[in-house]
Amino acid sequence: MREFSNSLLEEAVNAFASLPGIGKKTAMRLVLHLLKQDKEEVMRFGNAFIDLRNQIQYCTECHNIASEPLCDICSNQVRNKRIVCVVEDIRDVFAIENTKQFGGVYHVLGGKISPMDGIGPSDLNIQSLVEKVNSDNVDEVILALSATMEGDTTNFYIYKKIAPSNVKITTIARGVSFGDELEYADELTLGRSILQRTPYEQTLVK
Amino acid sequence: MREFSNSLLEEAVNAFASLPGIGKKTAMRLVLHLLKQDKEEVMRFGNAFIDLRNQIQYCTECHNIASEPLCDICSNQVRNKRIVCVVEDIRDVFAIENTKQFGGVYHVLGGKISPMDGIGPSDLNIQSLVEKVNSDNVDEVILALSATMEGDTTNFYIYKKIAPSNVKITTIARGVSFGDELEYADELTLGRSILQRTPYEQTLVK
Repeated sequence: MREFSNSLLEEAVNAFASLPGIGKKTAMRLVLHLLKQDKEEVMRFGNAFIDLRNQIQYCTECHNIASEPLCDICSNQVRNKRIVCVVEDIRDVFAIENTKQFGGVYHVLGGKISPMDGIGPSDLNIQSLVEKVNSDNVDEVILALSATMEGDTTNFYIYKKIAPSNVKITTIARGVSFGDELEYADELTLGRSILQRTPYEQTLVK
Repeated sequence: MREFSNSLLEEAVNAFASLPGIGKKTAMRLVLHLLKQDKEEVMRFGNAFIDLRNQIQYCTECHNIASEPLCDICSNQVRNKRIVCVVEDIRDVFAIENTKQFGGVYHVLGGKISPMDGIGPSDLNIQSLVEKVNSDNVDEVILALSATMEGDTTNFYIYKKIAPSNVKITTIARGVSFGDELEYADELTLGRSILQRTPYEQTLVK
């Protein structure tokens, strides 16, 4: 008696289970769900990933995903190419785009420096950022990495690399989130939000 | 600004998000994981589901999944075809097979009677079970459905259908799970496990 009486099933369950955060039991549940769908639907499901992987391109300017050499943002004439927001991956591009508060362009690093995971500066799209800055086409670089140790390390590495060019370097504001009870905010965030307090009138600007 | 700047990406994220229990954020995380894999690996991933759906067969005897007209269990000469264990879906077949305690065959219903979900007796593989029993080739039917209201309803429906044939009808034992503290067992289970207490010598049989 084997755990799976069917190699097709085993293959499909293992495929799901190879994804991060999905175990064998969940994988089986997902496979059973797919088995109940129409053949066309499952065909579309499987091909969605194959097509994505085969046809995806990365923007030659900012390393965002793209269907043409330049991504939708970099090819948009309205966007200010002189303000570059540095982010970790494309999820952050979507997150910031959804706020509708940013009119510049992005630079996607593809990760953050993390010696524990064997990711060094040369594994990330840092060199192309430095070149972009040195070519004098950039007025401001906004560092928008996560507020973690790896994020801070990466911020600092990039800062050291581009500071000589005298470009303006900023980082996104840290502070107490909207809707947060003050007593539940962590000390570090609360402390920093007091040190970097903002003139009240500024918060009134819509 | 759209949420997705790329229709390939959108398609892949929506494919994952169409699965039960997977939201847009998780779907995005899974897609980013796939984007980091080799093309061949993603090809194998997508095709696993397409192949499964296109090539899967259901056993003509027990409705278990199969690669030939008969599944591995029904075509196994060693299994006792006269003892039929009725289960809800193929996950239960795997669960019982893994115990290595059952030498009979299965009958997979494909669900349980659930008026709330619009699933009636005719949506399940009940008629073929009744025919199997009536053909006098079965000595015992073991009802092994979940101990839920739907499971009980389905058990009772099947019981009424096959009782006239005088086949032996049993159900799997309910009781306190191995390793459970008595004080944490629910009243219903504990009560039933006292009423249906087992001679101690029986539990010593390995």
